[in-house]
Amino acid sequence: MKKPTILVTNDDGIFAPGIRKLIEIMRSYGRVVVVAPDKGQSGTSHAITITTPLRLMKQREEKDYVEYAANGTPVDCVKLGVKVALKEKPDLLVSGINHGSNATINVIYSGTMAAVIEGCMSRIPSVGFSLDDYSQDADFEPSEPFIRKIIEEVLDKGIPDSTCLNVNIPANHDGPIKGIKTCRQGVGYWDERFDHRTDPRKREYFWLTGEYVSMDSLDDTDEWALRNNYVAVVPVKFDLTDYEAMDHFKNLDDNA
Amino acid sequence: MKKPTILVTNDDGIFAPGIRKLIEIMRSYGRVVVVAPDKGQSGTSHAITITTPLRLMKQREEKDYVEYAANGTPVDCVKLGVKVALKEKPDLLVSGINHGSNATINVIYSGTMAAVIEGCMSRIPSVGFSLDDYSQDADFEPSEPFIRKIIEEVLDKGIPDSTCLNVNIPANHDGPIKGIKTCRQGVGYWDERFDHRTDPRKREYFWLTGEYVSMDSLDDTDEWALRNNYVAVVPVKFDLTDYEAMDHFKNLDDNA
Repeated sequence: MKKPTILVTNDDGIFAPGIRKLIEIMRSYGRVVVVAPDKGQSGTSHAITITTPLRLMKQREEKDYVEYAANGTPVDCVKLGVKVALKEKPDLLVSGINHGSNATINVIYSGTMAAVIEGCMSRIPSVGFSLDDYSQDADFEPSEPFIRKIIEEVLDKGIPDSTCLNVNIPANHDGPIKGIKTCRQGVGYWDERFDHRTDPRKREYFWLTGEYVSMDSLDDTDEWALRNNYVAVVPVKFDLTDYEAMDHFKNLDDNA
Repeated sequence: MKKPTILVTNDDGIFAPGIRKLIEIMRSYGRVVVVAPDKGQSGTSHAITITTPLRLMKQREEKDYVEYAANGTPVDCVKLGVKVALKEKPDLLVSGINHGSNATINVIYSGTMAAVIEGCMSRIPSVGFSLDDYSQDADFEPSEPFIRKIIEEVLDKGIPDSTCLNVNIPANHDGPIKGIKTCRQGVGYWDERFDHRTDPRKREYFWLTGEYVSMDSLDDTDEWALRNNYVAVVPVKFDLTDYEAMDHFKNLDDNA
């Protein structure tokens, strides 16, 4: 059987320990092409670069392996990976391992998951992995058997069209991970404020800060799974239509 | 009755003709606070600024009107608007008028619509307006009666929680706009390529380019409405869970 071609990216940048671990795992499954941002791009969501030129810099090449850094966002990296580095669709796209959770509403802000959604929009089976630990020296080892299980399932059975996977892995502070749970996106919001500071030139500036507030106590969410030491798998789609709300607005149509 | 407080933003930047038209319209409905990017931020999606300081620069203040430029993304502008400029939730958030369509899959890339989704995540009634014309000197006048109709409906009846509106307005090249249609997000993708160029220092670089390919021929989509000279109204939500695909992955859960 032909080895699968796997495109790897992330949003923490090509030098992050998380992508290094993911590359190591993926090289045991096939030919790996890495196209990742040349610097951290956390919180860039589905941003694309349209007003400045994009550059692709080859970092390393070995048998069944090539690695590029790009001066763009994670979504730029997917587009450059498919159209320039590979010149064809890969069999699989993986993104991560993100330093920090992309569960609940964080999926909206995440560059790691935007890359996955971009792959999905191009009908590439795509999976994002995030560890619930923001630190640079997070321990990615306990994630490996779960990442392998999910990758083997996806390589074997595929993913339905228009769907991709948001996988969040607990940080393993409370004993071994208990298993995998397929979940929905938990409901909640960031209760934010701005740190108001003054720079040495006496001009004011702001840093965003805040805490996540859960509005969801049910046990079928990604948040519940993470808190209870399970790996959370949420199938994600890119049709944002709120079908249930459509009727509410139908009276706008009266001049049709 | 107390005048409503309305937060206005966009992604084309505070100097774009589209936001000027939207501000003019909104000032007839209430107290208006503008917080918009100090430069173009098209294609920034739901990006937030977390590694550089944010600044808010007051541009103008009059009775029931204040205008700030911010050095961030549209989503930053919403957060700064609510937490710093207003210090409370507005009664309404509007974003636009975008220079160019945000129908179909464009909603994912759009900074204009990301601002709207951010408002919705904070339970603020939020509406994004886009004109299907990318040019700087686009004619926003024919949009006005339809924007007024939608704003009056929203101020009068509200919007269901967890929903916001993506309004796309035809560019009016084929006679008067026929009316409003409530639609779903049309299915399609961008068939993209990279223009491969060489700079004066002989280093290669890339520009993203491409065409939208529709995969949807039905008459209930935003794309159909725009092509047939109707204003398209799509209710949008931020729960990205693909509920229909959840069963497909349940067999991953066997070690739970």
